Amino acid sequence: MIPAPYLLYLGGTADPLSIKTSRGVAEFRPEDCVGEFRRDESPLTLGLKRLTMAEAAAAGARTMILGIAGAGGRMGPDLIQDAAAALEAGMNVASGLHHRLRDQPRLVALAQERGLNLFDVRDPPHDLTVGNGTKRAGKRLLTVGTDCSVGKMYASLALVRGLQARGQPADFRATGQTGIMIAGGGVAVDAVVADFISGAVERLAPARHDDGWDVIEGQGSLFHPSFAGVSLGLLHGAQAQALVMCHEPRRPHIRGLPGYQVPDLADCLARNLEAARLTCPDVRVVGICLNTSAMSHEEAARECAATADRLGLACSDPIRFGVGDILDELLCAEPLPHATTASR
Amino acid sequence: MIPAPYLLYLGGTADPLSIKTSRGVAEFRPEDCVGEFRRDESPLTLGLKRLTMAEAAAAGARTMILGIAGAGGRMGPDLIQDAAAALEAGMNVASGLHHRLRDQPRLVALAQERGLNLFDVRDPPHDLTVGNGTKRAGKRLLTVGTDCSVGKMYASLALVRGLQARGQPADFRATGQTGIMIAGGGVAVDAVVADFISGAVERLAPARHDDGWDVIEGQGSLFHPSFAGVSLGLLHGAQAQALVMCHEPRRPHIRGLPGYQVPDLADCLARNLEAARLTCPDVRVVGICLNTSAMSHEEAARECAATADRLGLACSDPIRFGVGDILDELLCAEPLPHATTASR
Repeated sequence: MIPAPYLLYLGGTADPLSIKTSRGVAEFRPEDCVGEFRRDESPLTLGLKRLTMAEAAAAGARTMILGIAGAGGRMGPDLIQDAAAALEAGMNVASGLHHRLRDQPRLVALAQERGLNLFDVRDPPHDLTVGNGTKRAGKRLLTVGTDCSVGKMYASLALVRGLQARGQPADFRATGQTGIMIAGGGVAVDAVVADFISGAVERLAPARHDDGWDVIEGQGSLFHPSFAGVSLGLLHGAQAQALVMCHEPRRPHIRGLPGYQVPDLADCLARNLEAARLTCPDVRVVGICLNTSAMSHEEAARECAATADRLGLACSDPIRFGVGDILDELLCAEPLPHATTASR
Repeated sequence: MIPAPYLLYLGGTADPLSIKTSRGVAEFRPEDCVGEFRRDESPLTLGLKRLTMAEAAAAGARTMILGIAGAGGRMGPDLIQDAAAALEAGMNVASGLHHRLRDQPRLVALAQERGLNLFDVRDPPHDLTVGNGTKRAGKRLLTVGTDCSVGKMYASLALVRGLQARGQPADFRATGQTGIMIAGGGVAVDAVVADFISGAVERLAPARHDDGWDVIEGQGSLFHPSFAGVSLGLLHGAQAQALVMCHEPRRPHIRGLPGYQVPDLADCLARNLEAARLTCPDVRVVGICLNTSAMSHEEAARECAATADRLGLACSDPIRFGVGDILDELLCAEPLPHATTASR
């Protein structure tokens, strides 16, 4: 566990997408954030108090969260310098970058000297094994998507809160760096050895016996030629009885690949169901979450209604309109089959 | 490149499946094998001369191939002892096990002392990147399967030889430890970081301009709940115009998972084509390779004929009956689309 409270790092970037991890922590764990650190050249803010390293430590921050994603997840000299300053001020440092803190001798030496910790949240557990697809107890919901970065984590967190608000035990199972920082645990499935993708998810969301829900954060898309393998392994490992499809209606093409079209929602639903049935034959789709951040309120409402109509499924933007209809569908259906019937 | 000739290691096992890498090297590179090393307790043989380490070195062996797969790919004390003896006799050591030679301080020290090399063939290249799905030049064939261990590597090698015998430039692109040992290169795709599966295959079989074929060894199955993510990433990265489906007709269930049925061949073909179209819309299946090793010659011939009839595709056991019909289908079709038309 990464000790709270946190100082959120923004660095010197002007790209709002690159600070998405810091932004996620600020939105979902505001009570644990004492402030933000940014360099003078950055025009970005999370609306938190801007602090120096020393001020943050004095205000009680125990960990600086390097909640940024550079090109290729690299650690540049600025970033190493700032991480060193955080350690010198007495804070632990946590990072979700591809490049690891533990590979920086200067940071390792400093942390050791001061009795502080470096957290590389993308490091997979050391003892992962291959998945086995054995039917396990418990209720699981997985968010899937037409593409990367369409709001699966936000949808997952909104669903967890909604379930809890209705008195249902529910836990968020994080599979990406931002989710892990928010949840304080999880497995970055895109960072595990390929053989262990489904095994990692079986480990992340094991058998559950309290009648509560594991809401598993999806990654990528079966239609993203870079990452579909991760998405399929996640789908098989999740063994989810319920899927929620996430989608951004105005996305011009698959993220990062202008030659690839975003799939049709109905096709994408069908393909995900077909694949998910391998490990959970009774899986169903309980709703669609749209990311309508690029639309006006009226457009967004119209888009959700039209999508719901067209597909015959509950549809909402979880940030704008909540997930009430989706939870109604999830919870009001017939009781879901349990693992006690080894029905394969 | 792993220096030949080789001493093939069998260890002390009685399980014929566990020596499949040594067996593959013996079958496909007999001219490079000076003999086999086995402990007294092993009843297995590859039909090669049994040699001690010293005899092998004296006979000119430059590398001992640890061509075995233990439970979980572990390195037991016997194996480390034998690897050390090989180094002491003056041979390099190559291994395809999950556990790495380079993590054994005793072997590392010995190799360094004697100026010899340790080859961990499952180590992925250090600079892999995510795949991008960009249409690339060249002709590619990928072997896919209804399950693991149904003969994809044998089929791939038979297809390469068949193409070469017909005067076509063709190369085997290895994706597993045995294939890599045989080819002298390749990438163990199940050992790469999950994000890089398709990128690793794009690297393994890059654009090709000589009108020859890359025959890419498949792994796993879209229907294997442990490994389907690897299979899908491989399918997308391969961008193959031609698929050959491999299948073992008498397999009782998915390998290692009694609860999972082997998929119907037609369903499996459809699902592979559907997924492969994402990165190569013109992909087609050119044949079926059956592993009929558990059948009589007559049964095998009947099974191949019946399968060919039922699916309307060329069907053969590549070991028993060759791949002539499949090559006819592959080569006699209309010219395949080339990458010059950026047809997405």
